[in-house]
Amino acid sequence: MGGRREMKRRDFLKGSAVAGAAAVCGAGQAAAQEAGGDGMPKLTPPSQKAQLNLCLQWGGIPGGEMKEKLDFLEANGFASVEIPSGDWPIKNGEALVEALKGRKLFIATACGPSDFSYAEPEKREEEVQKFLPVIEALGKMKSVGLIICPARGKLSEPGRLSAKELRKDFVENTGKRLAEHAAKHGTSIVLEPLRRNETPFLRQVADGARIAADIGPGASVMGDFWHMQLEETSFMGAFLCAGKLLTHVHIAGLKERIIPGVHPEDVYVDGFRGLKLLGYRGAVSFEGGWPKNPEDPKKGLPQEERTRLILNMVRLLREQWAMA
Amino acid sequence: MGGRREMKRRDFLKGSAVAGAAAVCGAGQAAAQEAGGDGMPKLTPPSQKAQLNLCLQWGGIPGGEMKEKLDFLEANGFASVEIPSGDWPIKNGEALVEALKGRKLFIATACGPSDFSYAEPEKREEEVQKFLPVIEALGKMKSVGLIICPARGKLSEPGRLSAKELRKDFVENTGKRLAEHAAKHGTSIVLEPLRRNETPFLRQVADGARIAADIGPGASVMGDFWHMQLEETSFMGAFLCAGKLLTHVHIAGLKERIIPGVHPEDVYVDGFRGLKLLGYRGAVSFEGGWPKNPEDPKKGLPQEERTRLILNMVRLLREQWAMA
Repeated sequence: MGGRREMKRRDFLKGSAVAGAAAVCGAGQAAAQEAGGDGMPKLTPPSQKAQLNLCLQWGGIPGGEMKEKLDFLEANGFASVEIPSGDWPIKNGEALVEALKGRKLFIATACGPSDFSYAEPEKREEEVQKFLPVIEALGKMKSVGLIICPARGKLSEPGRLSAKELRKDFVENTGKRLAEHAAKHGTSIVLEPLRRNETPFLRQVADGARIAADIGPGASVMGDFWHMQLEETSFMGAFLCAGKLLTHVHIAGLKERIIPGVHPEDVYVDGFRGLKLLGYRGAVSFEGGWPKNPEDPKKGLPQEERTRLILNMVRLLREQWAMA
Repeated sequence: MGGRREMKRRDFLKGSAVAGAAAVCGAGQAAAQEAGGDGMPKLTPPSQKAQLNLCLQWGGIPGGEMKEKLDFLEANGFASVEIPSGDWPIKNGEALVEALKGRKLFIATACGPSDFSYAEPEKREEEVQKFLPVIEALGKMKSVGLIICPARGKLSEPGRLSAKELRKDFVENTGKRLAEHAAKHGTSIVLEPLRRNETPFLRQVADGARIAADIGPGASVMGDFWHMQLEETSFMGAFLCAGKLLTHVHIAGLKERIIPGVHPEDVYVDGFRGLKLLGYRGAVSFEGGWPKNPEDPKKGLPQEERTRLILNMVRLLREQWAMA
């Protein structure tokens, strides 16, 4: 992250006391403000008030059995659960739906590591066929959708579509068919922008949003604070570009891709303002690693320390949501 | 433009009466709003109030002589002038600066049709050398900067860099050197995202902003409503992504690329809200054509009709700025 962005985020934080004093108000003073004004535009409040729906990925939830994991989420202020990829949704979907009965948790996304950049149509078709039953299973679970990044390979390699060809084929063929299948089953595909070292194709939320809009019903986009920090210039701006197409958010530390709250750099207020402006009610889900075990880096952190860090993250994110 | 965006823009307009009633306010009610609230975030007012600085491109300004053109701009509420490309700034810079003395007009940008995507370093170097003296001339004129799109050619053709190679070379070499030269002479290079049929490389404001941020001092980005309408999902979001790096804006009709105000689709309120949030004081400059002459399509519109349409545009944009 460059110095400019650092400064910008600090400015937002510093400004938040002022901003708190200058937030939204009832009818009376609007005209006076416009005339005398602090230069703020007349923004339309969201049609629904945003909610901070915190979420954990399956593997990171304390507890062994399904019930134990769900109990932990409910007891500690989480609203959502993100499930594993592959055929997990097909194998475990029914059991999870059963275990969720009477609980207030919703199923966010499952990740589908994918690649639709093969020049050979047969290889792309294999990818499509692989995901159709997963999408059906996600639909049955009322999951938000299947996370997809259209290309992870090097597009300049032989046997790959060019970026332009890939975009066209994904919008009109592979992505379109997956999205239509998802819409039919009441779920969606969720395009995930990654970092430049991970994908040559989709790096920014606005780009994913435009691809999703071009595809139409059943396609949406997500933002991951960790990737966004490198690839975007504004968390708030990027989320606004996603608009109503934003269906999922990943969060991690901004200095290290570990659980938020370990480093003072973990400041999400600007992004949360964007989510509030959108009236966002999707999940904000932790995806990342853990600090090293200072006693033995090879062993990983003991579970009780991980649990302490999870609760610390919940406190931190709620605090910053209130500031936003 | 897809149906979704249409709806979104209409919603913003419909909402503006409500939004007017729910704009910013003084200290008293902020806490109550946060608790009871309409869900609006605590946004930081811009450090300076934005201004609608209307601007025309040289060729579109009524009048033959330099003085006549500048008189027209001043008399009709324009704040800025956009100058021709090529060696015009070198040949006419001093005369223009002289003619501007005592006037309140500033010199926005000049356009530099360019291509930095050649695989041969010598060809890229030629492009750099071509623009160095133009940048110096722009600096002397206190112009905002030189508009550049890094690639117009097909990157998949032989003899071209790949998108990834071009980005790296532009950020570290060609664009970097032009930007450093610009910063040294008190001006900037202004990256312009275009449409997908015009460039395979830079289509979104957030992308241009990230490239400019990666380059550093002397690099900035612009937004053109005409291109943005196809390539972005949110005018406001895209402008927020540009942030302080936004130094220029082009505007045209949204249904046809002609002077704004001819079609009812020409609604810029959402984008203007973004400019207000940024405290933007750069130019908003008309770039586009004219409606056909209904009497003789080959002849073009008579000057008096063009002038009428310019004044109509000024009225319309001011009206929408006030609504934003």
